[in-house]
Amino acid sequence: MGALDEGHLDAELENRVKLGFLELRLGDDSDTAVIEDAVKVLLQGLGEDPNREGLRKTPLRVAKAFREGTTGYQQKVKDIVQGALFPEAGLDGGLGHAGGAGGLVVVRDIDLFSYCESCLLPFKVQCHVGYIPSGQRVVGLSKLSRVADVFAKRLQDPQRLADEVCRALHSSIKPAGVAIFLQCWHIQFPTMENRTISSKVDMQGWAQISFCSGSGVFENENSDAWGDFSTLLMLSGVKMERNFKQYSSQCWCPSKPLEAVACTGHSSRILSKAGLGHPQPAMIAAVTSILCSLGEDPLRKELVGTPQRFLQWLMNFKRCNMEVMLNSFNNGKTSPCNFSLMRKKTGGDDHWDQNRIHSELNLPFWSQCEHHLLPFYGVVHIGFSYHEGAKTIERYILDSIVHFHGCKLQVQERLTRQIAETVASMFGGGVMVVVEANHICMISRGIEKVASSTATTAVIGRFSTDPSVKAMFLQSISNSRV
Amino acid sequence: MGALDEGHLDAELENRVKLGFLELRLGDDSDTAVIEDAVKVLLQGLGEDPNREGLRKTPLRVAKAFREGTTGYQQKVKDIVQGALFPEAGLDGGLGHAGGAGGLVVVRDIDLFSYCESCLLPFKVQCHVGYIPSGQRVVGLSKLSRVADVFAKRLQDPQRLADEVCRALHSSIKPAGVAIFLQCWHIQFPTMENRTISSKVDMQGWAQISFCSGSGVFENENSDAWGDFSTLLMLSGVKMERNFKQYSSQCWCPSKPLEAVACTGHSSRILSKAGLGHPQPAMIAAVTSILCSLGEDPLRKELVGTPQRFLQWLMNFKRCNMEVMLNSFNNGKTSPCNFSLMRKKTGGDDHWDQNRIHSELNLPFWSQCEHHLLPFYGVVHIGFSYHEGAKTIERYILDSIVHFHGCKLQVQERLTRQIAETVASMFGGGVMVVVEANHICMISRGIEKVASSTATTAVIGRFSTDPSVKAMFLQSISNSRV
Repeated sequence: MGALDEGHLDAELENRVKLGFLELRLGDDSDTAVIEDAVKVLLQGLGEDPNREGLRKTPLRVAKAFREGTTGYQQKVKDIVQGALFPEAGLDGGLGHAGGAGGLVVVRDIDLFSYCESCLLPFKVQCHVGYIPSGQRVVGLSKLSRVADVFAKRLQDPQRLADEVCRALHSSIKPAGVAIFLQCWHIQFPTMENRTISSKVDMQGWAQISFCSGSGVFENENSDAWGDFSTLLMLSGVKMERNFKQYSSQCWCPSKPLEAVACTGHSSRILSKAGLGHPQPAMIAAVTSILCSLGEDPLRKELVGTPQRFLQWLMNFKRCNMEVMLNSFNNGKTSPCNFSLMRKKTGGDDHWDQNRIHSELNLPFWSQCEHHLLPFYGVVHIGFSYHEGAKTIERYILDSIVHFHGCKLQVQERLTRQIAETVASMFGGGVMVVVEANHICMISRGIEKVASSTATTAVIGRFSTDPSVKAMFLQSISNSRV
Repeated sequence: MGALDEGHLDAELENRVKLGFLELRLGDDSDTAVIEDAVKVLLQGLGEDPNREGLRKTPLRVAKAFREGTTGYQQKVKDIVQGALFPEAGLDGGLGHAGGAGGLVVVRDIDLFSYCESCLLPFKVQCHVGYIPSGQRVVGLSKLSRVADVFAKRLQDPQRLADEVCRALHSSIKPAGVAIFLQCWHIQFPTMENRTISSKVDMQGWAQISFCSGSGVFENENSDAWGDFSTLLMLSGVKMERNFKQYSSQCWCPSKPLEAVACTGHSSRILSKAGLGHPQPAMIAAVTSILCSLGEDPLRKELVGTPQRFLQWLMNFKRCNMEVMLNSFNNGKTSPCNFSLMRKKTGGDDHWDQNRIHSELNLPFWSQCEHHLLPFYGVVHIGFSYHEGAKTIERYILDSIVHFHGCKLQVQERLTRQIAETVASMFGGGVMVVVEANHICMISRGIEKVASSTATTAVIGRFSTDPSVKAMFLQSISNSRV
């Protein structure tokens, strides 16, 4: 009795997305080429030169990332679960519930990444799975995670993700019931309002919403089974909100109009709505061709506006848009574009007050990795020497400099250097910049190093020549974390 | 200028382990078959039937896990880094350091798993990499993680791992210097002494040691460069101990004799040393054949005793050894094998005091997953009804029951049920058991869900019929976590 019920697995378990018109094979070179061509169109639309070093291999990297991130289209739940169903005795009849008969089994804190079908940006998922075995049949614990991953690695909506995982596990294990609880985090679009929400390198700037799905004894959300599941999640620090079904997918993705107030810090006012970047029809066609090459139907209801929404995000990083935007942002206050003017105001000679090391910490930023066309985000710390008698540099000016250099295709090392150079050119003297970031390309792609974070530094003037000044500034960042 | 310095990559960068006698191709079926045969010998040596359901596919699973966990033998650093070296301007000459010239770049908290070459058990690594670019050349940030993974996916010693990653990055990026800081956790062997150290599902029971390696400006551990690196790690909560080189590999792996006192909770008194299980020569030959099939030289100095040490661990889980051990463990106190006797002492009728729900929480356990021959470990919570006038069940008795059922090839669902059944057969009445665990097979193999944890339950009698009693017990576990 190798794999129980092999013959009884529902046809539904085949679980390839029902496209009707296209079935993909992994590693199909012609599909990869389609994505590469599309990415070249996007780069040109952003005002970039696709042949410049740094971007030359970006189309290939993006194509690989899209294909790696959507391998779920090629996987069948049946292949994963069959051979991993084990006969496991339950407690003697009438005695109680355990083993293969009624003892709740839970796998908590499964880290997943998925692609939002509404805007094509990845979203992070913390997945918690519970099921109650029946028929003296249990499934290998790691398979709960693998099945969840099959559905995560597709273009998804979180509620559908929860429902699909629930349904697939129920059909394949045939248990008394399956419970799925997902905590999902969606990248926020950088708007003027939410740019300052995040104060450290974490997911504070992300919209977080929870979703659940239940079958069998978990169909009723108020059942004891849900209560037990919820308590076992609590043991690993996961708090399950009640009434979690109130969130609609309308308010989940920041690219869609806000229709409910439940999302934390959500805003639909996108930079590109300020009239800064309008995608060309060729770009929309390019994104549509990416959808097709992934095996999706671009006419599926949920995908109809996806190319526009993805481009709405991407156009935030169009070259040369920022001057216009920053001018309007500052509402007539000192324009951060007139950096040289400001320098004049703060004095020009080189007599620095040795004791005046000023620092502005935790300036939030967003940027777009030019190697993978995926966001990286985090905080910038700036330390600088004040000229004696110089007037204070206001935080909003530094904030604008950070935003100016962040809002384009970037690499973190260059961003760090450019911020340092700009601050030095404005105010002269010593400058140190530390950029701490999370890279979506590092956590959502093949290597999936979810916990990893990066830090880059640039030092100018006395920060470069005097190690104690540098150490003092680094220490001040450290102190701010306590 | 696609990939900088392609022509200058050292021959060392080829970086296949220098075996001289065997080069592996990934997915070599004959090597997989060798491991499968070896695992069958091991299962028989453990007194198991390799054909019983649950074990039937274990040889294949173990073979796949070994091959997935040692793919580093087939990977070349050159393939990873070349094409990911980008020209990146530094700050203008003399001004300072940043970008491709002297600005420290750090990737923190890279989760890795490796196999201990001393005992073949996996160990967990939190890897932190820093480098200072030179020659206007930076490497894609994700490549630092990928290169570290190449060396982690081999049989390793942590100091050599640190040194190899450092050397490989230095030769390929040609920077001003590379710093590697590794925090490593090795599974402890379950000894009588350390069985009670761990009080919750975390890595408290693991031996933790840190290792570092530096090149170029990081060669001197007291340099400013190390100071900066250390502060940037501190920003993400990583405290770098000084004098970390004092730990020798002698005391790192619990299978080796203790020669230093630096390891937390380390003990070399292994269960099998109590004369409980002696591996047969056929088992030693089997493990040796696994080493060969991975492409390693079993005569390499560090590997000479590895088969014996691996078996020393494995024999802890030999069937039918436990009675002997528990008798000696209890030193003449009530033997947990005489469960029926004890039941008699505590009375036999069915008149229970409804208010006396007693619980023993956080009983630590170790077990060995029968599907993957890898450890799982964690804590057991037991709730039970007391018979009126019955004397208190002492914790050490429950502890012994947990240990009795843990120390064999197991699955978590069965372990949970067996503990519940035994407690019920001893004391009658209602019982609830919750087992919370981490599975090495879930975090070190393909799916690498590092943060995931599992929970299984069994309920008997009033815990099964009265949801409020069950909820009360679950709540008491939850309260104990605060």
